[in-house]
Amino acid sequence: MGIFYQREELMPDSKTVVKSGSEKSISPAVIKRLPRYYRYLGDLLKNNVVRISSKELSQRMNVTASQIRQDLNNFGGFGQQGYGYNVEYLYNEMGKILGLDKTNNIIIVGAGNLGQALANNQDFDSNGFKIIGLFDVNPRLIGMTVRGVEVYDIDMLETFLKEHEVMIAALTLPKSKATKVAEQLVDLGIKALWNFAPVDLHFPEEILVENVHLAESIMTLSYRIHSHNQ
Amino acid sequence: MGIFYQREELMPDSKTVVKSGSEKSISPAVIKRLPRYYRYLGDLLKNNVVRISSKELSQRMNVTASQIRQDLNNFGGFGQQGYGYNVEYLYNEMGKILGLDKTNNIIIVGAGNLGQALANNQDFDSNGFKIIGLFDVNPRLIGMTVRGVEVYDIDMLETFLKEHEVMIAALTLPKSKATKVAEQLVDLGIKALWNFAPVDLHFPEEILVENVHLAESIMTLSYRIHSHNQ
Repeated sequence: MGIFYQREELMPDSKTVVKSGSEKSISPAVIKRLPRYYRYLGDLLKNNVVRISSKELSQRMNVTASQIRQDLNNFGGFGQQGYGYNVEYLYNEMGKILGLDKTNNIIIVGAGNLGQALANNQDFDSNGFKIIGLFDVNPRLIGMTVRGVEVYDIDMLETFLKEHEVMIAALTLPKSKATKVAEQLVDLGIKALWNFAPVDLHFPEEILVENVHLAESIMTLSYRIHSHNQ
Repeated sequence: MGIFYQREELMPDSKTVVKSGSEKSISPAVIKRLPRYYRYLGDLLKNNVVRISSKELSQRMNVTASQIRQDLNNFGGFGQQGYGYNVEYLYNEMGKILGLDKTNNIIIVGAGNLGQALANNQDFDSNGFKIIGLFDVNPRLIGMTVRGVEVYDIDMLETFLKEHEVMIAALTLPKSKATKVAEQLVDLGIKALWNFAPVDLHFPEEILVENVHLAESIMTLSYRIHSHNQ
C-alpha cells in the first residue's frame, strides 16, 4: 500500500487505488480530501452548527455538492436526502475513518527547529496525536523538553521503542541522515514514517511513508509566479 | 490562476488546467512533478552523470518513461530519440521553467520554530530563494538573527516592503492570526503566499496561494495506518 500511495502522490492523474479495510477501493484523491472535511466540520461544530446541507457545505469549501456526496458515499454516506448532514455525527464518523478516535503515539527524530515546531503544534493533540519523545544526536538538545516532551539521545531509540507503542516516526533530519535513520526505525518495528527530508525512502509496501517536501512546495509556487508573470 | 490551482489541489482528479505564459495549458499534476525531476537531475549532476535515457530516469524515479516524455513535451521536450537527455542542460532548463534562475526574495511572517526552521533550510538558498527578513510580534524574538537574517517587528512590514522587492511571503503564524496578516500582506502588494496555517485564504485569482497543511498530512498517514490495520 505504501508504494502504491507514493506512486499515486507522484501521479495524481493515475487511477491507482488503495484498498480500505472494508475491501472497497478508495482513491488517494478522496483520502487526501478527508482531513479538509474534518477541519471544516470541526469549525462548524465550534460555531454550534447542528445540521448542514451538502449544498451549503460545498459553498463553504469551494467544492461541488456532488463531489461531497460522492466522497462520503465511499464510506457509506452519512446524509439523508433533503435533510443534510448532522454535523457532530459526521465529524465523529470522519474522525473514526481517519483513525483519530485512537491515540497515535509519535516520536520525532531530529529535535532542531522543525522537530520542535511539530512538537509545539497544538493542533496535533486535539486530534489524537501524542508526541511522546524527541531524539537527536546534539548534546546541547538532549535532556531539554519541548512542551513537556523530553529530547533523548538517539542511541536510546531501541530501548524507547521496546517500552512504548509508537505508531508514527516523524523524520526532521538533514537529507544526508534521513535514509539511514529511516532504515533503523523500520528495523526496530516502526510501520509509518512522516518524512520531512527531501529524499525518497524505499521500503516494502507495508511500510507507510508520507512525504512533506517543503522545497518542492515552494518551487511549485515559484513556477506559478514566473509563468504567471511572463 | 490562484483559485483554479487551489481547487485543483483539492480535486486532483479534475481536469482544471493552468495556462502557462506560452498560452499552452499545463496541468497542475505536471507542475507538481517538476520539482521532483529537478531534484533527481540535481543529484545526477552531482554524481557527474552526463546523459540519461528516459528509461533509466524512469526506473530511478519510479514513474513510467512515457510519463516522463509526456511531461517534458509540455515544455517542448528536451531529449533526442534514442539518445536520452543531457543532464546538465535539462537541469538548467527545468530550473528556468521553475523560475529558479531568478532570485526570489522571501519574507517569513512568524519567527517561531517553524519560521526559524524555514530560515535555516539551506536547500532554499541553492535554488534561488533568498530569505531577507523575518517578522514577529514577540519582543523576545525581535532583533535576533537566524542565519544572518534579522527578525523585525511586524509593524515594520510596510516600510520593509516599500524598500525591498519581495516575491513570496511565508506565513508561519497561528491559525487565528493568519487570515488578517495575509490580507495585510496582499494590501501591501504581496502576490504569492506560502501558507502554513491550517486555514483557507480567499483572494482574487491573481494572488497565488500555496498551502502546506501539516495536520492534514499526518491525518492522511493515520488513515492509511488504521485502514491498513483493520
